[in-house]
Amino acid sequence: MKIGLLTSGGDCPGLNAVIRGAVLKGVISHTTEFVGFRWGWRGVVERDLMPITRHDVRGLARQGGTILGSSRTNPFEGEGGGPENIQRMLDEEGIDAIIAIGGEGTLTAARRLYDEGGIKVIGVPKTIDNDLLATDYSFGFDTAVEIATEAIDRLRTTADSHGRCMVLEVMGRHVGWIALHSGMAGGAHAILIPEQPQSIEQICEWVESVRERGRAPLVVVAEGFTLPDMTEAHSHKGLDAFNRPRLGGIAEMLAPMIEERTGIESRATVLGHIQRGGEPTAYDRVLATRLGMAAVEAVYDESWGNMVTLRGTEIKTVSIAEATGSLNTVPQSRYDEARILFG
Amino acid sequence: MKIGLLTSGGDCPGLNAVIRGAVLKGVISHTTEFVGFRWGWRGVVERDLMPITRHDVRGLARQGGTILGSSRTNPFEGEGGGPENIQRMLDEEGIDAIIAIGGEGTLTAARRLYDEGGIKVIGVPKTIDNDLLATDYSFGFDTAVEIATEAIDRLRTTADSHGRCMVLEVMGRHVGWIALHSGMAGGAHAILIPEQPQSIEQICEWVESVRERGRAPLVVVAEGFTLPDMTEAHSHKGLDAFNRPRLGGIAEMLAPMIEERTGIESRATVLGHIQRGGEPTAYDRVLATRLGMAAVEAVYDESWGNMVTLRGTEIKTVSIAEATGSLNTVPQSRYDEARILFG
Amino acid sequence: MKIGLLTSGGDCPGLNAVIRGAVLKGVISHTTEFVGFRWGWRGVVERDLMPITRHDVRGLARQGGTILGSSRTNPFEGEGGGPENIQRMLDEEGIDAIIAIGGEGTLTAARRLYDEGGIKVIGVPKTIDNDLLATDYSFGFDTAVEIATEAIDRLRTTADSHGRCMVLEVMGRHVGWIALHSGMAGGAHAILIPEQPQSIEQICEWVESVRERGRAPLVVVAEGFTLPDMTEAHSHKGLDAFNRPRLGGIAEMLAPMIEERTGIESRATVLGHIQRGGEPTAYDRVLATRLGMAAVEAVYDESWGNMVTLRGTEIKTVSIAEATGSLNTVPQSRYDEARILFG
Amino acid sequence: MKIGLLTSGGDCPGLNAVIRGAVLKGVISHTTEFVGFRWGWRGVVERDLMPITRHDVRGLARQGGTILGSSRTNPFEGEGGGPENIQRMLDEEGIDAIIAIGGEGTLTAARRLYDEGGIKVIGVPKTIDNDLLATDYSFGFDTAVEIATEAIDRLRTTADSHGRCMVLEVMGRHVGWIALHSGMAGGAHAILIPEQPQSIEQICEWVESVRERGRAPLVVVAEGFTLPDMTEAHSHKGLDAFNRPRLGGIAEMLAPMIEERTGIESRATVLGHIQRGGEPTAYDRVLATRLGMAAVEAVYDESWGNMVTLRGTEIKTVSIAEATGSLNTVPQSRYDEARILFG
Repeated sequence: MKIGLLTSGGDCPGLNAVIRGAVLKGVISHTTEFVGFRWGWRGVVERDLMPITRHDVRGLARQGGTILGSSRTNPFEGEGGGPENIQRMLDEEGIDAIIAIGGEGTLTAARRLYDEGGIKVIGVPKTIDNDLLATDYSFGFDTAVEIATEAIDRLRTTADSHGRCMVLEVMGRHVGWIALHSGMAGGAHAILIPEQPQSIEQICEWVESVRERGRAPLVVVAEGFTLPDMTEAHSHKGLDAFNRPRLGGIAEMLAPMIEERTGIESRATVLGHIQRGGEPTAYDRVLATRLGMAAVEAVYDESWGNMVTLRGTEIKTVSIAEATGSLNTVPQSRYDEARILFG
Repeated sequence: MKIGLLTSGGDCPGLNAVIRGAVLKGVISHTTEFVGFRWGWRGVVERDLMPITRHDVRGLARQGGTILGSSRTNPFEGEGGGPENIQRMLDEEGIDAIIAIGGEGTLTAARRLYDEGGIKVIGVPKTIDNDLLATDYSFGFDTAVEIATEAIDRLRTTADSHGRCMVLEVMGRHVGWIALHSGMAGGAHAILIPEQPQSIEQICEWVESVRERGRAPLVVVAEGFTLPDMTEAHSHKGLDAFNRPRLGGIAEMLAPMIEERTGIESRATVLGHIQRGGEPTAYDRVLATRLGMAAVEAVYDESWGNMVTLRGTEIKTVSIAEATGSLNTVPQSRYDEARILFG
Repeated sequence: MKIGLLTSGGDCPGLNAVIRGAVLKGVISHTTEFVGFRWGWRGVVERDLMPITRHDVRGLARQGGTILGSSRTNPFEGEGGGPENIQRMLDEEGIDAIIAIGGEGTLTAARRLYDEGGIKVIGVPKTIDNDLLATDYSFGFDTAVEIATEAIDRLRTTADSHGRCMVLEVMGRHVGWIALHSGMAGGAHAILIPEQPQSIEQICEWVESVRERGRAPLVVVAEGFTLPDMTEAHSHKGLDAFNRPRLGGIAEMLAPMIEERTGIESRATVLGHIQRGGEPTAYDRVLATRLGMAAVEAVYDESWGNMVTLRGTEIKTVSIAEATGSLNTVPQSRYDEARILFG
Repeated sequence: MKIGLLTSGGDCPGLNAVIRGAVLKGVISHTTEFVGFRWGWRGVVERDLMPITRHDVRGLARQGGTILGSSRTNPFEGEGGGPENIQRMLDEEGIDAIIAIGGEGTLTAARRLYDEGGIKVIGVPKTIDNDLLATDYSFGFDTAVEIATEAIDRLRTTADSHGRCMVLEVMGRHVGWIALHSGMAGGAHAILIPEQPQSIEQICEWVESVRERGRAPLVVVAEGFTLPDMTEAHSHKGLDAFNRPRLGGIAEMLAPMIEERTGIESRATVLGHIQRGGEPTAYDRVLATRLGMAAVEAVYDESWGNMVTLRGTEIKTVSIAEATGSLNTVPQSRYDEARILFG
């Protein structure tokens, strides 16, 4: 049996651990062969492949990024795209199944390839923001939270030494999990997430109450947070001429607003790409390894069109449809819980 | 309302975060007062108390250890021990309920105090080994795994540079969770846990097969692992005259045995106390904070004799009886999964 | 004897270790008393003092920031400013000498207070950028380099996974030491520092040669780096309406320029305040502790108007004039050395 | 020109960075070729070589250990040993010079090969203990100190939570630099080093005075520390049947002695191999890279029989004789300085 692996979308700590887990599972227990498609779906539609042996995955559990490369190519586009072309390629290359590691877009495309063309595909959910339903946590999230928490720990001493308000922007375009967890872990005085718009007045009230207790306020904000009265124009402030992700978007907007209203000197820090690179935490290495192994198991079970997930302490297989379509947002109860800590 | 807090048994990263979570929850949302019993149950039976204010818990989420101190005192012993004396003390001090943070012994004692004397007590499970049922994970475990994984990462380069076999001993007297997770995360070539006795011949076979693939073998062993033919005397080798935990017990026994049988130079390292001290990971800070908050909630709910636990992503309240009595051992399926990676 | 301590200017890992070293040295070996001036020179001119006991410095070696607070107040300004007012305050408070921990501005002011008013003052150099002459290294620098290097390690995996060019901006307004050392440690493909203006053409040539070798380019740039043809306006691009340090200044300018010229997708990351907060490295803790102890020694030696410095492995006392007036820039030889590694 | 590289003796963080620095320097600026001798001098006497290209050193700055392997083989022994055989091998392999990276034994042997046989050799000092004269610091030392300091930080919370005395054993057979620096950085209450024998009574006095101040004592001891009345037998307690480095030697001896005399529960921790493996700190990466580059420079300068060293901020070339023969011990003044902090 020969399995093709691909990693798609933004990189995420643990991608290589998934690859390693899959290959070791297949090679050792079932003498399966592996190939990697380079640069995500692009390798599929452009037939850009590389063999992956046991030797190639040595030491990959702790290595950030993906040895296969990644891109945002759509498998339904381009000359080699679509189910028919892909099936022909698979037949010619002798590939029996695809394990696609990616976010909502990749998983949805994988499902569609199976539904429309019978492509034998298994999904592995990848979202550093933890925004996919049907999995308790996704790999990479724990690492991102850890890095954001370390940043909060560092910013706190600067805040205290200068009596400043520090505003830290972390990842989270549509959901606020990284902000919620790092904010709780780091003892932030306000956590701002896309699910819970807050007025600038409310934010400044929190900031001032912290100041009144003699402390330097620390605000964690997810990149996707918006003020209720933010106009379209505001929310896109920071998108540069090349239409790339904003550097210093919402945090850079909030810091001067807070300073102006409260008179407390305020500074913005944008963590950016540092959150998604480098070595995964042990938690993410274990989770990613187990998901990779389970994906190969799912191939052996011919569980096409499904994906592997974490439920409690168990790895399960669920329909991709279950995991996509709507977002895993922060529920009100979790935000209320965290809000008590704001003080 | 006034709540008394205590931490009992070996220290564990996250104890202070539980205390902080409880105090913030009580102070901010319900104007509850808190006192801490010093040195675990000893503070209860000896009436050694300290007030804990909001100011006292500042910055505690990231601080290892416990500001209350800990010991292994039994609340049924001593002059002030037993339900009657304790109830009298609580009445005189105006304390309405106790939140007891501790392992199996503490939780069982807490339950007995409630059953036999109606002492209003809520438990918070604390076990760095992750050996308690009824909670998916306990705080401190993630930190211990992270530290053990970093140690494996470091030992690997020494192993490779000298062509040596490194044997790392991690915590786990009765269950092998720390060894299992750190071994998977660090890419160990053999994981030895109490639940799965292995013969020295099997261990040496794994070690030699690693050598044959041109690599330096890395073995992770839980302190409670035993060889099938280990006599009583052997298994206690290393227990010193003061009956204290062995330093370099099983690893120091295995390394020369492996070297003698395989001819591969072998070295033992014992992580020891480093695994249980210092700053908790972000994961443990969040979990411990939530448990502390939920314990106060359980007090308000008068959920006496119960404890708070993690199930999936939710904090639940369960009967202490559910969590004690038998151990949360590594199931066969998880060991089989990990064993595939030994290669 | 009573000594007054103050910390002035931007915070820096190791400030608290200096305070602890000074207090322990004075308290234990000479029964000296200490007071701290709050918020730097502001505490001097506004007579805002706090006693510092041995108990207060417990655990401070590893704590980032400064327990005294800091500001940029000038001791020659304000109602209580100038040598005469300060001497009167010192007399009234029974303070025999001041140890001033700060950068070039603070040291120069300290010297002037001594020259013009005979104020008994000893300086401790503080510059995270390492831009002071007369000391081999200043505390905080090693920590900043370590943090920047970790960021490079993390960015590398993202760069490789996406075939992108990553541009990391680190501190260094006038000198490029942090960029030089972190760039060498992290294996950057180009290091851009204020002392060595490079044309955008040269930068793109380096970037493209990396790409041709099949790697993803990683550029480290000090915040004070300028392109030779940068106009005044450009170089201030990013200074916001409140005249605060630019967020994403030079890196945000360079990334799109590189992308436009080379066609390689490029991303900017600005480390910012994270570099100056949090726990110091062991190196900085030792250096800062020794400097604090030596400053008290210098008080006992009545070495007024001087400062303590590191030379090789020794702590020396030198005239403040030696250390100020000109900058400790990266010499050509060190840049040439690093440039070989760009490849 | 072709240069042969070798790494000898115990592994040390930064060895790979030296190799990388040398190769990049030679390849890029002078089109020099490199080969590596495998397993230290053994590769020389057994003619076990591998080519090292620029591609092979990619990413090595941050990788612990040595890609060449290491051993303690003596180049004057064995069939291929001695200057004549080695010169013949070099001639036949077309190798012009050897860069030997190692400790006192390696450097002395290198010098002897040059003195007795004219072998063109340059030394790079490697000692994690920092026990070589003629260099301010050696690479690997900073990493070891950082790891030991992190261990102290972790042990402190356990000590405080249980009111215990913790005894941490760090590396340092003949000199106490690692104990001195990590003890100062971590705020140890007693630092015990080979250069300064202390009686058990003195140690217990320090421990008790800490207890009296309400704190939990933390003792750092270098593995080579001895009590003044330690017999030969005692000092070798812990050496096992295979004559290998003691696991838990001096710390395991001291902890029960302290407990017995003071009544304070005491625990020993032995850091062991963890100190010498894994990623180097940024400091060590920069130092090692510069030394590797300078060694190639020394080859071009035909500075045979010499070694490269750090003096202040500069890399210098000195005679090997200067660096060997006597040890770089901790001077009395540095111990007195640290002792003030014991309290």
